[in-house]
Amino acid sequence: MSLLSIGTVAFDNIETPVGKVERVIGGACTYISIAASYFTKDLMISSIVGGDFPDTELKYLQKRGINLDGLEVIKEGKSFFWGGKYHDNMNKRDTLFTELNVLDDFNPKLPASYKTAKYLMLGNLTPDIQMKVIKQMKKQPKLITLDTMNFWMDIAMPSLKKVLKKVDVLTINDEEARQLSEEYSLVKAAAKIFKMGPKYLIIKKGEHGAMVFHKDKIFFAPALPLTLVKDPTGAGDTFAGGFMGYLASVNKVNWEAIKTATIYGSVMASFCVEDFSINRLKTLKKGEITKRVKEFERMVKFKM
Amino acid sequence: MSLLSIGTVAFDNIETPVGKVERVIGGACTYISIAASYFTKDLMISSIVGGDFPDTELKYLQKRGINLDGLEVIKEGKSFFWGGKYHDNMNKRDTLFTELNVLDDFNPKLPASYKTAKYLMLGNLTPDIQMKVIKQMKKQPKLITLDTMNFWMDIAMPSLKKVLKKVDVLTINDEEARQLSEEYSLVKAAAKIFKMGPKYLIIKKGEHGAMVFHKDKIFFAPALPLTLVKDPTGAGDTFAGGFMGYLASVNKVNWEAIKTATIYGSVMASFCVEDFSINRLKTLKKGEITKRVKEFERMVKFKM
Repeated sequence: MSLLSIGTVAFDNIETPVGKVERVIGGACTYISIAASYFTKDLMISSIVGGDFPDTELKYLQKRGINLDGLEVIKEGKSFFWGGKYHDNMNKRDTLFTELNVLDDFNPKLPASYKTAKYLMLGNLTPDIQMKVIKQMKKQPKLITLDTMNFWMDIAMPSLKKVLKKVDVLTINDEEARQLSEEYSLVKAAAKIFKMGPKYLIIKKGEHGAMVFHKDKIFFAPALPLTLVKDPTGAGDTFAGGFMGYLASVNKVNWEAIKTATIYGSVMASFCVEDFSINRLKTLKKGEITKRVKEFERMVKFKM
Repeated sequence: MSLLSIGTVAFDNIETPVGKVERVIGGACTYISIAASYFTKDLMISSIVGGDFPDTELKYLQKRGINLDGLEVIKEGKSFFWGGKYHDNMNKRDTLFTELNVLDDFNPKLPASYKTAKYLMLGNLTPDIQMKVIKQMKKQPKLITLDTMNFWMDIAMPSLKKVLKKVDVLTINDEEARQLSEEYSLVKAAAKIFKMGPKYLIIKKGEHGAMVFHKDKIFFAPALPLTLVKDPTGAGDTFAGGFMGYLASVNKVNWEAIKTATIYGSVMASFCVEDFSINRLKTLKKGEITKRVKEFERMVKFKM
């Protein structure tokens, strides 16, 4: 089934304890759509780049089955550019700079073919832009997932709460869930967030895995402990891409499918962090994904 | 099978965001042995208390099948007394005071009947005392588990490393595993720690669950998200008690048994934190444990 993703397509400067890279390919929408492309080829993205974004990279996305009709290219503009530095604890990072560039004027206008997408992934952007995309949909998508962050909770909570009313799945981290709900217990936080709109709450906890809350049910997806995490950038977006890509491919939205999708999302994220930028996602083979899903299953299986 | 546990039997003052209690029953050995008593009745403890420790509490332990022949009572002395305060994030706590009292002179002398125990649980104490207990064993126990903390790594690393050579299972948290191994990746940390002696490394991560490393295998036990955590004191000891109690009851030490034991340990810990002190452990029913183990299984099960 068709999956429309929105988010940034961008450049990143990244520094981790393991190394340093400059002007590499990044952006939420890039990670989301590449990860999803391992599950389905009916993919569209809505984003914006400047004339400086390499043609070869756009061609790579197209080769992976990603429709770029909704990717605005501002020839005379510059692409969104972000720089960040990770410390010993890869869970924490500092933003070194943020150059919005063409993103400052991003006002998504969906091509007609996008407006009937069955699955909609709203990558991390201003809640207002996320809302604009929902409003352009001709038919209610089967599933809308929204990713956001504490930044929007700090400066745009009312807009965020408006868009939350329209979404089915919310993906945030544990601190953000606590900030949004003003509850410390994640069980209580989930109950409050369900009242804001989402039916599913996915809490991304980095090296501690991910949790899904739905009604009174809880699912716990482990994270694969890795010998070497090179670069955590894009892990959350890659998670979302694997999650939505899997759901779009099986075209089912129920508790069982959501759980399996969460594992696929976690598996894709575990590959993402093995190398800088989208490097590992580019070399990934289908068989490696299946093999790692089995590892995840082995990691949690026990006999009573 | 017989399980010998050593550790403190003590009083605690505890303050959490939920409430405050004074001079309640605490101590690693108390939590370990009560938790283990839900699995086996062949239990012995080696510890020390002062004349101020209530007789009713000692009788309660005996009623649960715990042999107190190795519990030294110093009539004119005072029991170990610890005070701690937990902040909003229940994972962090400040020690308010530590009165060693009779613990200062603790020099465990095992009764003859203790020296052939099949399972040995060395609760958190100075590595020297842990070593003294191992040396008194007449026969090599089938399994020795050692719990320790960063404090001993800071002030007694050489002694700790000596005792580590003698143990099969080490239980610590993720920060401690990193401190002990000087490796950030837990996979690398585990590999280094195996070279120090232990065959199994259990990493306790509080609300993020627990992980077990063994050779190249990894097991991930979730934590049950609770509506209300009242008091995390003793959760790690209760984990160890459930873990060792289960193993002693099935009398098997292999990967499958270790995984199941880790789940039982996590389940016992999830009860422990529901109330202050040993209150919840005192009211617990066997059926509640089985029910919660099933919940843990449901929490991680997915279809590929």
